[in-house]
Amino acid sequence: MTDVKHMKWWGWGVEGVSFHWQDKPGFAPFVLRELHLDLQTSEIVEKPDFASIAVADPVADPTLTAALASIMGDDDVTTDAMDRVVHTYGKGLRDLVRIRQNRIGRVPDLVVYPDDESEVQRVVDAVVAADAVLIPFGGGSNIAGSLEPRVDERRAVVSLDLGRLRQLIHLDEESGLARIQAGVLGPDLEAQLAERGWTLGHFPDSFTHSTLGGWIATRSSGMQSDKYGDIADIVRGLRLVRPGGVVAIRPVPSTSTGPSLREMILGSEGRLGVITEATVQVHRKPAQRVIHAYFFPSWQKGVAAMRAIAESDATPIVTRVSDARETTFSMATSKERHGLDKFLAGTALPAMMRAKGWDLDEICLSFIGYEGASAHVKRQKKLVERIVRKHGGMGVGTGPGVLYDQKKFDTPYIRDFLLDRGAVGDVSETAAPWSALLPLYNAVVAAANGAFDRLNKKGYVMCHLSHSYHSGACLYFTFAFVGGDDVLAEYDVVKSAIQQAFVDNGGTLSHHHGVGVEHGPWLEQDISAEGARVLRELFRATDPGDNLNPGKIALEVQDRVTG
Amino acid sequence: MTDVKHMKWWGWGVEGVSFHWQDKPGFAPFVLRELHLDLQTSEIVEKPDFASIAVADPVADPTLTAALASIMGDDDVTTDAMDRVVHTYGKGLRDLVRIRQNRIGRVPDLVVYPDDESEVQRVVDAVVAADAVLIPFGGGSNIAGSLEPRVDERRAVVSLDLGRLRQLIHLDEESGLARIQAGVLGPDLEAQLAERGWTLGHFPDSFTHSTLGGWIATRSSGMQSDKYGDIADIVRGLRLVRPGGVVAIRPVPSTSTGPSLREMILGSEGRLGVITEATVQVHRKPAQRVIHAYFFPSWQKGVAAMRAIAESDATPIVTRVSDARETTFSMATSKERHGLDKFLAGTALPAMMRAKGWDLDEICLSFIGYEGASAHVKRQKKLVERIVRKHGGMGVGTGPGVLYDQKKFDTPYIRDFLLDRGAVGDVSETAAPWSALLPLYNAVVAAANGAFDRLNKKGYVMCHLSHSYHSGACLYFTFAFVGGDDVLAEYDVVKSAIQQAFVDNGGTLSHHHGVGVEHGPWLEQDISAEGARVLRELFRATDPGDNLNPGKIALEVQDRVTG
Repeated sequence: MTDVKHMKWWGWGVEGVSFHWQDKPGFAPFVLRELHLDLQTSEIVEKPDFASIAVADPVADPTLTAALASIMGDDDVTTDAMDRVVHTYGKGLRDLVRIRQNRIGRVPDLVVYPDDESEVQRVVDAVVAADAVLIPFGGGSNIAGSLEPRVDERRAVVSLDLGRLRQLIHLDEESGLARIQAGVLGPDLEAQLAERGWTLGHFPDSFTHSTLGGWIATRSSGMQSDKYGDIADIVRGLRLVRPGGVVAIRPVPSTSTGPSLREMILGSEGRLGVITEATVQVHRKPAQRVIHAYFFPSWQKGVAAMRAIAESDATPIVTRVSDARETTFSMATSKERHGLDKFLAGTALPAMMRAKGWDLDEICLSFIGYEGASAHVKRQKKLVERIVRKHGGMGVGTGPGVLYDQKKFDTPYIRDFLLDRGAVGDVSETAAPWSALLPLYNAVVAAANGAFDRLNKKGYVMCHLSHSYHSGACLYFTFAFVGGDDVLAEYDVVKSAIQQAFVDNGGTLSHHHGVGVEHGPWLEQDISAEGARVLRELFRATDPGDNLNPGKIALEVQDRVTG
Repeated sequence: MTDVKHMKWWGWGVEGVSFHWQDKPGFAPFVLRELHLDLQTSEIVEKPDFASIAVADPVADPTLTAALASIMGDDDVTTDAMDRVVHTYGKGLRDLVRIRQNRIGRVPDLVVYPDDESEVQRVVDAVVAADAVLIPFGGGSNIAGSLEPRVDERRAVVSLDLGRLRQLIHLDEESGLARIQAGVLGPDLEAQLAERGWTLGHFPDSFTHSTLGGWIATRSSGMQSDKYGDIADIVRGLRLVRPGGVVAIRPVPSTSTGPSLREMILGSEGRLGVITEATVQVHRKPAQRVIHAYFFPSWQKGVAAMRAIAESDATPIVTRVSDARETTFSMATSKERHGLDKFLAGTALPAMMRAKGWDLDEICLSFIGYEGASAHVKRQKKLVERIVRKHGGMGVGTGPGVLYDQKKFDTPYIRDFLLDRGAVGDVSETAAPWSALLPLYNAVVAAANGAFDRLNKKGYVMCHLSHSYHSGACLYFTFAFVGGDDVLAEYDVVKSAIQQAFVDNGGTLSHHHGVGVEHGPWLEQDISAEGARVLRELFRATDPGDNLNPGKIALEVQDRVTG
């Protein structure tokens, strides 16, 4: 029915790709030990049957349907049940569980595929004229609940899929600026730029299935943001379709015009309108790119080293260090031949580490990346490695970094694999000043373990520092446990405990996943009650009819997540 | 009456400091040649007589006055005429001319000096309860008309002077973050940090007489922003007093919570409330700091070199290049012994330049700065100088850079000196993508010269590139001419022509001076009509009574500058 491709309706990624454990000898023992889940015997519930899924009939609004059809033609307006289900959610844990439990709830009534900005404008105007609801949709990878209609929404809900707006419109090689349509997926965008020798350098975990517009609407960060900047730094110009007209932000490198409209559109999750286009900073493909692996004797030393690198004259593209538990997980998910554990076993490293007095259960794996001219890479590496040594770390070459690069977009498949077997896995990330990081880390681990205890579960929580800044860093937590009778209630206990520990310890509610409805309960604790009030006043003023993705970001009482 | 110091009421800076030309042999001939102003014979109109200044009686609001006195004590609430005049304006050309012409117009009725944030909160609440107007005041250096009451304002106007909020509250050395009150002046702030070995690194032209809060409220940039970032990058945490409560933004290094309240408060010019405090990124004093001077054979080559530096692996702290006319001006304002012209005359340089085929009337002076560990400085300099040579430039050492550092905050005194002698000088700056810079430059010079022609004036316009970014740069223009009967009308012709050329050629209305009322007429052309509408909707929603510095940024029709 449409040329726009989507992820499979019940999980992450594309049909036929999934995580396999049989070639990873450490994985089954790890899962058995840490989650008490026996992969040899566990029941597998995979693909649900779409025919058995209960999808409510669409709210009929013949005038609106006719108006949309007259804008785009019948073919680009659909009430197809599968299309509507695909556009109901992102890929949060809560989304996948609801789909698997056949409790999908409120799905959009219409999905539309406009061809260009003028069609988007006419759709937005028609939806507002009909007092319906508009939810923009990019790649559908959101995990903060930013895409779903309100459960009690009685008006017609239109999901506006931007998948046809995917062209690189103009590349300004002199300025390093590319004007690109918002619906383009990561790989397509990079391919269009690569043809001319350029890169955006934005690689979030969701890269293969997320769009430029989605990155902007949720203030995304990528794995190489230490160099390329978060999407908020990368985006210079913007076009946002509002009811009645287009906000056009010109791509200037800086401006003193405040309040910054550019930064109001960034992270707006559809509440201010539909982002159709951005002019973004792009870079020539670097002459050299390399990811080096290092080990630290402890998490504290690893974090201290990242801080020292951020303070130094060095400018690596990636600074990442995992805690001991995530290091163990990395070894457990390594393939037989190339695995980190094999790597360690096959070298003199463990003996060296022990000789230095290291506790092998406490070692932390770190990846640091370098890009640029060969002399620049060499010098950066030298500066960094002096700091690594000063903090007791040791380099182990580029082998693990090559593996990291190959596997970096695969993690979501592991979550689906576990969910097929009854184990709930998810992520929560935050950013905080350097001085707050270790106390925050300890508080989060304690909060997660406390939640596991209250649920009487064997659970696992692990963490890596994923992005470094002058004044602080992002800590990225992953947690898992085997679900029971009410998996979403259990999930809420753990997820809430972690989020609460973030805001109680100087962290923000999310570093790069957005607010949506999932993180909304912590908004006031993050940006203050008065700050949340300003956002509500903004949304009421710019969207008086509550037609633009209502309920997201600044929750009203009635918008709290209902599960 | 108060311990808060202000600039002199009729001009820039402090009493007893002024520009002198007698020790600068090139200056009088330059001014005679370029402006047809003869310093030997020109009439000098200096300090106006305050006794002759017409200051309207304050609008009486006894209830408000009593409320303010009960909050702060009588001593901290004043209707003193001098105090009120000092708080009427910033130091824009239009401001100084109106003062000298005794046409001051609407002055604030009350000036208040709160001691802390809780007093600020009570003042804000009292002003809103009385349906009066509140205008926050920092150092009073603004040149965009952000401080003046609306001419037709009938309600009581309160100027809230933040001069008593000037403490470094906390220095987090681990995170490189300092929590500082907003009313602190630049030198005081740097002195408090320097005691502990730290620096903010923010040095706008106004540094000696502007405040942290003022920098934030207008999205300021400093001379070393290439390294330290614009104030928008430097500020992490913020506190903003609104009617009824405080918006508190925690100092996280990054967050995905959008729309960004932090970036809404930045540049808000008092329209959202009063900024009382910020947590800012600070840096340890660098081991080494040096400014090198270079010459390029042409403006085109100089700009191309700055672009190549921005694209390279080098990270200098300053990248600045003047056009040929500003280079001539720099030589004309140099002292006899150390002057650039003397420097040139005393060396073999001119002969070398001629031998290379350079036209000495076209040469362009450039300053590039380096900071950090000695090895870092050495390497940066090497990377940069390779690019300089590739673009036909040549280094001339650190001598001119030392002079630049000594004189860098003196330029506003030259404007006052010229105004004393009937010549109008002012500045306009913008930012644009690299590919737009030279066409924009040419258009601005043509627009200014066209305006001079229409006015039948001999005028001068000169420019430097002051800040470099990945995708573009800031161009900073200075213009001057001898005023006639209606100097403000003439000023408008030139200033408007320049501003119009900015927005017509891909530039923003201002890179770091804010919008105020002076640049308001170009807001819609800069951020689009729909963008300006969003800002108006925001202000109406957050300030329904129009009590918070009304008329600034998003002009309503009635707020246009009336001269």
